[in-house]
Amino acid sequence: MSSYHLNRRDLDFLLFDWLKIEDLLGRERFAEHSRETLAAVLDLSEDLAADAFVPAYKPADQREPWLDNDGVHVIPEIADAVRAYAAAGLTAGSFDADLGGLQAPIVAATASMACFMAANISASAFPMLTMANARLIATFGSPAQVEAFARPQIEGAALGTMCLSEPQAGSSLADISTLAQPDGEDALGARYRLRGGKMWISGADHDITGNIVHLVLAKTPGPDGKPLPGVKGISLFIAPKVLADGSRNDVVVTGLNHKMGYRGIPNTVLAFGDGAHTPGGRSGAIGYLVGEVGQGLAQMFQMMNEARINVGLGAAMLAYRGYRQSLAYAQERLQGRPGGASAPAPIIGHPDVRAMLLAQKAYAEGAIALSLYCARLLDEEQTGEPTARETARRLLDLLTPAAKTWPSEMGLAANDLAIQIHGGYGYTRDFDVEQIYRDNRLNPIHEGTTGVQGIDLVGRKLARDPAALAELRTRMEATAAKAQAHPDLAPCAAALRAAFDRLDAFAGTIETPLSPKALSGATSALRAFGHAVVAWLWLDMATAARTPAAEALGDDAFLAGKVAACRFFFEQEVPRIALWLDLAATGSDSVLAIPDEGF
Amino acid sequence: MSSYHLNRRDLDFLLFDWLKIEDLLGRERFAEHSRETLAAVLDLSEDLAADAFVPAYKPADQREPWLDNDGVHVIPEIADAVRAYAAAGLTAGSFDADLGGLQAPIVAATASMACFMAANISASAFPMLTMANARLIATFGSPAQVEAFARPQIEGAALGTMCLSEPQAGSSLADISTLAQPDGEDALGARYRLRGGKMWISGADHDITGNIVHLVLAKTPGPDGKPLPGVKGISLFIAPKVLADGSRNDVVVTGLNHKMGYRGIPNTVLAFGDGAHTPGGRSGAIGYLVGEVGQGLAQMFQMMNEARINVGLGAAMLAYRGYRQSLAYAQERLQGRPGGASAPAPIIGHPDVRAMLLAQKAYAEGAIALSLYCARLLDEEQTGEPTARETARRLLDLLTPAAKTWPSEMGLAANDLAIQIHGGYGYTRDFDVEQIYRDNRLNPIHEGTTGVQGIDLVGRKLARDPAALAELRTRMEATAAKAQAHPDLAPCAAALRAAFDRLDAFAGTIETPLSPKALSGATSALRAFGHAVVAWLWLDMATAARTPAAEALGDDAFLAGKVAACRFFFEQEVPRIALWLDLAATGSDSVLAIPDEGF
Repeated sequence: MSSYHLNRRDLDFLLFDWLKIEDLLGRERFAEHSRETLAAVLDLSEDLAADAFVPAYKPADQREPWLDNDGVHVIPEIADAVRAYAAAGLTAGSFDADLGGLQAPIVAATASMACFMAANISASAFPMLTMANARLIATFGSPAQVEAFARPQIEGAALGTMCLSEPQAGSSLADISTLAQPDGEDALGARYRLRGGKMWISGADHDITGNIVHLVLAKTPGPDGKPLPGVKGISLFIAPKVLADGSRNDVVVTGLNHKMGYRGIPNTVLAFGDGAHTPGGRSGAIGYLVGEVGQGLAQMFQMMNEARINVGLGAAMLAYRGYRQSLAYAQERLQGRPGGASAPAPIIGHPDVRAMLLAQKAYAEGAIALSLYCARLLDEEQTGEPTARETARRLLDLLTPAAKTWPSEMGLAANDLAIQIHGGYGYTRDFDVEQIYRDNRLNPIHEGTTGVQGIDLVGRKLARDPAALAELRTRMEATAAKAQAHPDLAPCAAALRAAFDRLDAFAGTIETPLSPKALSGATSALRAFGHAVVAWLWLDMATAARTPAAEALGDDAFLAGKVAACRFFFEQEVPRIALWLDLAATGSDSVLAIPDEGF
Repeated sequence: MSSYHLNRRDLDFLLFDWLKIEDLLGRERFAEHSRETLAAVLDLSEDLAADAFVPAYKPADQREPWLDNDGVHVIPEIADAVRAYAAAGLTAGSFDADLGGLQAPIVAATASMACFMAANISASAFPMLTMANARLIATFGSPAQVEAFARPQIEGAALGTMCLSEPQAGSSLADISTLAQPDGEDALGARYRLRGGKMWISGADHDITGNIVHLVLAKTPGPDGKPLPGVKGISLFIAPKVLADGSRNDVVVTGLNHKMGYRGIPNTVLAFGDGAHTPGGRSGAIGYLVGEVGQGLAQMFQMMNEARINVGLGAAMLAYRGYRQSLAYAQERLQGRPGGASAPAPIIGHPDVRAMLLAQKAYAEGAIALSLYCARLLDEEQTGEPTARETARRLLDLLTPAAKTWPSEMGLAANDLAIQIHGGYGYTRDFDVEQIYRDNRLNPIHEGTTGVQGIDLVGRKLARDPAALAELRTRMEATAAKAQAHPDLAPCAAALRAAFDRLDAFAGTIETPLSPKALSGATSALRAFGHAVVAWLWLDMATAARTPAAEALGDDAFLAGKVAACRFFFEQEVPRIALWLDLAATGSDSVLAIPDEGF
């Protein structure tokens, strides 16, 4: 067993027994793949994560990235891990063959990434951002841009970033002020000069690869020379650290953010065109326009959505790691006399400890299921029949706020329990769980806070596409119908239908634009939605654990664990859905009533 | 405004408008006090906390205590703060005059301590432990022990510790193995030689004071020379760092625990009688028996209960500090256009941010109210009429598990929201909220974990003294009757009665000893109980904010804020009580059903 306590059977159950990804392999894109090739990728991922990513976990927390005159540096363990990932060809996993990719299903590549996230969340952020960056260029860039900027990332010669936020504009991208002024054209497309500051940019400088590809949102000037107002003024640019002629582009890190956790990847203040480090002076950083002017935000949403699902997966894997580590601790630590034992016995015998373990299992594995379900939808969007593609796209749109938020919030709750099971030891740096908890605290913040996701769900996703919720309902009903056949799961099916009835009723009342009252309940609506979706997925997993084929395996305890986690979720968590929907439906009177001076 | 953003009006409201502590001042013990003297103590506390404790907050996090051949060291800022506290006479606050004390009401001394906890939680732990230690010696020690060990602490010449846990026995004190062998008698009482190791001992060594007074639980030997089994074998000993003749006692710190937060006070591994640092060799550390053999645990409960209430208060003050700091941030930070503003406006205008502020206010101020209510009960226990004393003692017994746990859990939830309001900045060490959150994570663990408190509430407090719950109900009914007169509070009164009906019904079903099923629901019962109690206190505060005298002040916004927080709590939190009580009543089937191998 590797030191991060991954139980491979959990991944296999999700991929093969539940999501049945072998069904995908008949599609033309995946002709080169079989269950065996996918298993080999997972074997490789597990081993490499244990060998290269785990050893960098604590050292990266103890020594943060540092900035000197040469730029940003990371510890060698981190650089080695990230290079090993690329060297193993994993960056290329799901890309097209003509880009050097393996054309693996996205869901399999996602499961591979999950191993690395469990092993070292911040080291895994380098390849995660790089793949999303390269995919965006592959989608919207010109052939020359793809060759120059996507291919080096896929091959491991460069890493990528996403540059959106600015100090004065965190969640509010309409207010960014980085300016992009036309500067002619060259072989790589329309050239612009970028000037402005970006904030919260992860991996914007380091000594891991020679080049770094920045994807930058900036505004072209209007007739008055000032940035065009609003989101329609935003365009997307590629600004590499090193230009085609080998010279340095005028992109420099001017400061590092010192974080509570997640310290393996530098988070930076980034300046475009400040000239301080460039012989050419303040002429601006060179950036190449991607696609058309004004399309920047729409294009960037592809990368943002991929990153959001990956943030959720990362949070899920931190929850899972904390669960497995606290399970191992609970099996070993002797304390008290649970069940009337005659001598101190392992604390897993205490009902309270068991409840904390089962809650973690329900949160962590439910969150992984949600992430992989979304990854499976991405495959459908890419390789399904036309109608299925469209359905998958709309379902993904609807699920993304929950896929980002639910694992982030519930994963943190899981990590809290992992600490609690360790008692005082969990509060010390001798064990991993305190670091896992600190690392995970980032996830409800980056790539859109929980509050932003709530508004996205209610004000955009639910309000604008009622058919997507109807499709979700159809899938949920199919699960409920299967569950009905099992006496111990039938009550869950009924509770699930009741929860979706409430959700449907709530969705029917949404008015746009959202009133302050509706806005005061949007986060509650998101929590209810996330819980309902995960309840559905748990019931679906429990029914998968109950198929004759699954039960014939004779691996009773493993499958019984899945059913117990499903029942726990319905017993302890599903009742909260109605409370949240009450709040979402009525909004909060007290929030609106309190005067500013009353706080 | 001091840098930790304490709003003094909040403390004044709680003490004078709500708890009406001026009513206490007619009692003989408090004859020297008036509202003015108490206000002067609070003024002093606020100023000293701002001047000496706040400046040590971040430095203590950045440089942990360290251990070298001379023992444990803390940074000078911490030593200065702790010395300044004692020099101001604050340690003596609530002690008897004949011990050099000021005989202030405990509730006032507690409000004073609250200022220091908000300013620097780990620095305040030194005087908190010292006062509880001295009080225990004053209660159970001989006159000579009181002079030798309590008085120096009250005067500021020594600091105190509590030494309970051992590495193999964290929550399970029956399993401690530190041995105390009789060694004659001297002027300080029956002398013993202590040998054994203690774990998680805060403040066990440092360079702040010359002497340190350890209160140690240890076992006397039975006829076979081995420690007596079970809790009845436990006795209490005083083991000073420096003995009466000026020589070093054989008590040494052998290791430091490196914590996630709460770093201003060293947490140690402590060895009694290991001889390594003592010329006399392994003859054992000298300890003086307090009271009678076998009474150790019963005596120590006085200190544990005081510490539990103070842990709750500390958690409450961290919640409060995070609330005030995130409020200040929300008033300044421009982002988005809340309510259709024409330019970026302060984020306090966003309904979601307001909801996060109001939740923090409800948790933090509710938690402080609970702590101060308990402190007021301590005064009643000490100075009330005989019947009132007994009633106060039993109520305190019942409330202590909630007073320890509710602020710890909900305070952490508040701190989570404080980070969220700061967005990415909240995740950096440039702001205080990430440290506050890390500091607060200790509170659900030390002085009895949440799980231990749940078992204490259900298995002991509710099961053994139904009359205490009946007394609580009587007080709640008095509040509900007052609230009935206010149309906007009347629905809260009804909801509160319903919650207590459910609580009464649950309490009526408890069987002892608790079954595994009941144990699986004990934490849920504690959460429900804590929420019901705080709901009652919020309604009581809201009615206090609605008296003609209060409203005549014309300070509408402040009082409206109290009422809004009360309504928020009933709107968003009180509905959870029924869910928890459902779980508490039925226990968790899934927790008991899952096989060990199913995790």
